[in-house]
Amino acid sequence: MEIVFVLFDRITALDAVGPYEVLQRLPGATVKFAAKEPGEYRTDKGFLALVADHALRDVPRPDILVVPGGFGTRELVEDEEVLHYVRGAHEHTTWTTSVCSGSLVLGAAGLLRGLDATSHWTELETLRQYGATPTLQRVVTQGKVVTAAGVSAGIDMALDLTARIAGDDVAQLIQLGIEYDPQPPFDSGSPAKAPKEIVERYRALLAARS
Amino acid sequence: MEIVFVLFDRITALDAVGPYEVLQRLPGATVKFAAKEPGEYRTDKGFLALVADHALRDVPRPDILVVPGGFGTRELVEDEEVLHYVRGAHEHTTWTTSVCSGSLVLGAAGLLRGLDATSHWTELETLRQYGATPTLQRVVTQGKVVTAAGVSAGIDMALDLTARIAGDDVAQLIQLGIEYDPQPPFDSGSPAKAPKEIVERYRALLAARS
Repeated sequence: MEIVFVLFDRITALDAVGPYEVLQRLPGATVKFAAKEPGEYRTDKGFLALVADHALRDVPRPDILVVPGGFGTRELVEDEEVLHYVRGAHEHTTWTTSVCSGSLVLGAAGLLRGLDATSHWTELETLRQYGATPTLQRVVTQGKVVTAAGVSAGIDMALDLTARIAGDDVAQLIQLGIEYDPQPPFDSGSPAKAPKEIVERYRALLAARS
Repeated sequence: MEIVFVLFDRITALDAVGPYEVLQRLPGATVKFAAKEPGEYRTDKGFLALVADHALRDVPRPDILVVPGGFGTRELVEDEEVLHYVRGAHEHTTWTTSVCSGSLVLGAAGLLRGLDATSHWTELETLRQYGATPTLQRVVTQGKVVTAAGVSAGIDMALDLTARIAGDDVAQLIQLGIEYDPQPPFDSGSPAKAPKEIVERYRALLAARS
């Protein structure tokens, strides 16, 4: 089972590494990190580089495709080479997935037309321009297309996918292996749950940097 | 505020990238990934490489030190160069932290003597040989030494640390930014919660590979 993660500059590292840590433990999984060209791809502030060992053109037929998010998706949604790759890979996948604003790339590739989908909560409305119906759910499964909400949601998405692919017991084993017994100190992880002033402050900070 | 993550071969990627995704958002944070020598360091199965931009010797005085875990810690606990670095850095840190089996490295450096500490649940007893008292808690704070349980626990640890450093509102903002509203499909994330047969099967798989 070949699992391809798409890398690009200004990626959000946890979008990729969360599901990676789950899916790489699937029995028989081979994981390939790929980008337009092999090399190092950096997170938004440049602090961390992840390495793409492969060029996208060399991994055309993944069983599972994972498109992470990050500010770099703003360029990706206009990058015909990447969109062409995503479209072609999708013809062969068992599962085509995204985390966070990675869903905008699936959308730009034309894969979300008529589907429910999710994204980082600040990008939900953007999904409409690709013909998708935004839903504030953590994981949205539509046929073989699975979109996850922002950043950390990729972990839940990958566990859900693992259960579908390999059964509940394997998903539970992996959850135990990564000791995923979340105990966040606050209940501030979604715009529906966070204090209203925190949500407004986040929007203001985002607007200031955009 | 300088935050140093220690990289090494056979690292568990999420151990580093979970807290990275939180702590890099701290106002004024500069994050440096460092290893014995700059270069690429790979996860256990070799699928993913993270890049160390710095040599440990070039980042001797971090404000926050994060030592992730992974099978590679088995070599790290006997690596005098790394242990010397950890000891020296600890003299200057505001917070010295670990995720998963990274706590064994803190232990081998002599930093856990007489302290409560945690680790990946399969390594808890190993902590005793370093004079620490193992505790099955997700995050254990003892003075400025903070140890987190396995893999995904680093996210909770980093949010907790963020609240201590920058206040609850900043921690809530960051939690909202990474949409950390965990919804695991199973309740199997700790040996106390997972079905007994899953825990036993995990132990058997681990024994078979050791």
